[in-house]
Parts: sequence; C-alpha cells; structure tokens
Amino acid sequence: MKLVRFGKVGEEKPGLIDADGTIRDLSGVVPDISGPYLSKEKLAELAKLDPASLPKVDAGVRLGPCVGNVGNFIAVGLNYADHAAETNSPIPSEPILFNKARSCIVGPNDDVMVPFGSEKMDWEVELAIVIGKTASNVSEADALSIVAGFCLCNDVSERAWQTERGGQWMKGKGCPTFGPLGPWLVTPDEIADVQNLGMWLDVNGKRMQTGSTSTMIFGALYLVHYISQFMRLEAGDVITTGTPPGVGMGMKPPVYLKAGDIMTLGIEGLGSQRQTVVPYKAG
Amino acid sequence: MKLVRFGKVGEEKPGLIDADGTIRDLSGVVPDISGPYLSKEKLAELAKLDPASLPKVDAGVRLGPCVGNVGNFIAVGLNYADHAAETNSPIPSEPILFNKARSCIVGPNDDVMVPFGSEKMDWEVELAIVIGKTASNVSEADALSIVAGFCLCNDVSERAWQTERGGQWMKGKGCPTFGPLGPWLVTPDEIADVQNLGMWLDVNGKRMQTGSTSTMIFGALYLVHYISQFMRLEAGDVITTGTPPGVGMGMKPPVYLKAGDIMTLGIEGLGSQRQTVVPYKAG
Repeated sequence: MKLVRFGKVGEEKPGLIDADGTIRDLSGVVPDISGPYLSKEKLAELAKLDPASLPKVDAGVRLGPCVGNVGNFIAVGLNYADHAAETNSPIPSEPILFNKARSCIVGPNDDVMVPFGSEKMDWEVELAIVIGKTASNVSEADALSIVAGFCLCNDVSERAWQTERGGQWMKGKGCPTFGPLGPWLVTPDEIADVQNLGMWLDVNGKRMQTGSTSTMIFGALYLVHYISQFMRLEAGDVITTGTPPGVGMGMKPPVYLKAGDIMTLGIEGLGSQRQTVVPYKAG
Repeated sequence: MKLVRFGKVGEEKPGLIDADGTIRDLSGVVPDISGPYLSKEKLAELAKLDPASLPKVDAGVRLGPCVGNVGNFIAVGLNYADHAAETNSPIPSEPILFNKARSCIVGPNDDVMVPFGSEKMDWEVELAIVIGKTASNVSEADALSIVAGFCLCNDVSERAWQTERGGQWMKGKGCPTFGPLGPWLVTPDEIADVQNLGMWLDVNGKRMQTGSTSTMIFGALYLVHYISQFMRLEAGDVITTGTPPGVGMGMKPPVYLKAGDIMTLGIEGLGSQRQTVVPYKAG
C-alpha cells in the first residue's frame, strides 16, 4: 500500500495510490495518515478497502509530507561507508544520531528555502522509516513489528551550521523546509528487501548521488532496535537513515545549493521528489 | 498566572492555581495547556477569569507535565560558566544545542526510571522556556513576544550515553522519564527578572546544586533569538536552558543516581519537583 497526504499546507487529506497510480481519497475512512492511524491493525483495515470505491483525486494536487504530525524526527549520520570516506570521517563504531526539528518537514515537491545567512546548503537522499507503534528496547528481530512503512527523505543540511557552530549537528539540520518527506508512505509488504534499494539525486539534472541501501553500515531494522534503547519511539516518529556518497560538501571543491537550483531524487519503490531552492523569505 | 495540568497520565486536564494555592479546573474553558492555547491572546482570556468561579480540584491530584503535546524539546548545554568548569569544558563561544526526545516528558513528581543498562544517571535543575507562538529569526528584543511562560525542568541525563556513544549528546538525554516539567507554567508577568532566580537540587535531602539564573552565559531571551535562527519555533515547543554547578558527573569521584534515590529541586517562583528513581521496567 502506498499512502499519501494531499491538499493545501496544513489541510492535507489522507489518500492512497491505486493500481493505476491514481490518488484515491481516504478522508471518508480515516482522519489522517499520522500516529494513531499507523498501527498494523489500522493499516490492515485500509488494505482491505477496494480503491475503486474511493473518490478519485485530481493528479495535479499538491502532495504534503506523507506522515502528519510527526513526533520525533531522528536522523542517522555517516551511515554509508563511502559517504563517511568522502567527508573524511572515520567509519562509526555505532550509529551517530542527531535530531531534525519537526518544524522542518514539508511535502516532497515543495520549495526548499535558503535559510537567512546560509552559505553551505547541501542535499542528502535518504531512506526514512516511519514508526507505527510506541515501543522501547525493541530487539532487531521485532523491529519490523513497530514499523508502519518507509518513505523517501531529503535530509537537507547547512554544513557550516552543522559543523562549525558549536558541536552538535542539529543546528544545520532543522531549518524550515529542510525535511521533504514522501511522496508515499510505502508499507513493508511492498518492499522485497529494504536493504537493496537503488537511490539517486540530481541537482539541475546532473547526477550527484548514486547509491543503494545495500551499502548502509547499520541496516534499517538494526537502527530501530538501536535507537529504541535511548528513547521511547512513538507512532508517527520518523527516522531518516543516512545518505550515500555524492553530497556537495564532499566535492572538490565543495558545491553548495543556491536559489534557483532544482533537486530531484528518488529511491526504488518509494517514488521521487522535486524541489526548487528559493531565496530566504521572512515569516 | 500559574497553569497546571492534572489527572492521570495521558488524560490530564488544564487548571490554574488560585491565590490560595488551590488548583482550579479549567477544563470547561480550554481543552488543554498546549500549543494552540498558549498565545498571548488565549492566555489573556484565561487571566480575565475569576478563579473563584472555577471548580476546586483535590490537592492530592497527580500533576502532569505543565505543557501538553510538546513539539520540539530543545536543550542548551554548558550554559553556566561554573558548570562548564566542573565538567572540564571550555566556555562555549555560542550556545550548544541538543535535543531531548519529547517522549521523555513526565510530570514534576512522577518516578524517574533508570534506563536498561544505564550506569551514569545524573540530575540537572534547569529553567525551561515554553514557546507560545510560531516564529523564525526572532530578534532578542522581540523574543518575549513568543514566550508563553517559564517552568522548572529536571534535564535528567545518562552521562555515558551522552558522551561515550558516538558524538551527539541526544542519546543520553531523551530516555523515558528524563524530562520532568512543571509543576506550573508561569506566565512572564509573574516573574520580575527571569535572569535573577535562585535554583537548587537535593539528592536524598543533601544539597547538590545551588545556583541562580543570574550566572547563565546566554540569557533566556537571547536563546530564543538564537535558536530561532536555526529552526522554526512553534507554539508548544520547550527550551531548557542549562544547569548550574553541582551535577553528579562533576563530583570527585563522580556520583550517579541509583534506584531508591529521591531528587527534589526548585526554582524561585516556579515551584518545586520531587522524583523517586525507580529500577528499569520494560514496557
């Protein structure tokens, strides 16, 4: 099942993608695609619906983030060996965790805004995990039981603020619009092997990142297990799992985003995103 | 005005403290003390009420966290010069920010649980700021306009997980029960000078921390300004602003919490908390 949220910012309705790729309106069935509606039981109810019985939605509609009311938005750093190498960082002995402010989350094709005073804005195509059930200290074997699904995430970053402003990475990770999520929340049954998905990111049509979740240092389910030791994961939390090589910071010389640039990115089975970088605007 | 949330975990009702210290039930007036009800306008409506017209609440009721549905829970590290010294850390040139998982938040007198496998659990009495209005890039002069009020926070920490597990502090800061908030959300009009409040913390009746917000390196309103450059602050976000000297990690030899210990702590004008440390329990 591929679930979406569509409509104006802050007024998104839930939907699903039918076999033809048409969005079907779920708002008569469930209030939102968010924490309370992400349990295995609730998702099983949606899976039983006949999509043809649901109203069609115009294909031109805006897509919102594929999960509403995200709680904790957790990110994993340097989780691809070849990306660690390009940033001159050692391979982590255990996952590096940081936080993205949940107020940075936007739809998959919304504009991404240069923060006021930013000079080193960068891209990161990532596989994100959406948590469907509240749990602590989950074993790796049980981790899938609390996963509602997977989605595409662009972990947009400001490198100077991440690394040159006092020690913790979150300063450069949670700026408004720095968290496009979607287009779809894809349930695990649709993904044959989450550790074997091709991924890519282009800037202005030029391929920058090419990778596969097969080269992750710590796999998705291990990460759920690992993080659940340090915090209680809750339905509606999102974990984005790190990026393969090809970020701007790793180029020689480094290349950073500027207003007018267009990012397109995708992961096999999880759809694609397209963002235009726009100048800072107050408000 | 002193606002509270009272009742069972997850079913807290809003209330206010009258001139006699009695809790008055606000649930007939406002659904919760949380993001949408924290604006200056909404708080002004509550301030106009005659407390005597509201139902009295039994004094023995459990208090929940004084803010419901917290969004981002942001913390500031090493923000007291003398605390930086006791941890052998240099005075930060700009605020150090990290994140506490919002799932760690509990009431002011709830039990605090030793995480599974924890060995270096520590205390930190802190002044917390509750955001009442969504805003980015707020000047220090305008910062108070987005503040709903202040409250007491125990920034409970696991030092090994904070500093010995891969670089970012959040691993040792967001364990379940690590964020007691309250008893009261105190509106700014009740605080003559937020930068001149005495603060203290005892463990088993022995004074461990004695300090004052007067020795903060970066003041509360500067922090709101500073953080708003990196993320959009939203109504219902909480910023906890760092701790004065006297944490367990700074003792020679270090002293850490164990099951059975009792923490009591307070800040002038913001009330006090009392937590019993309990062993890890799954679930």
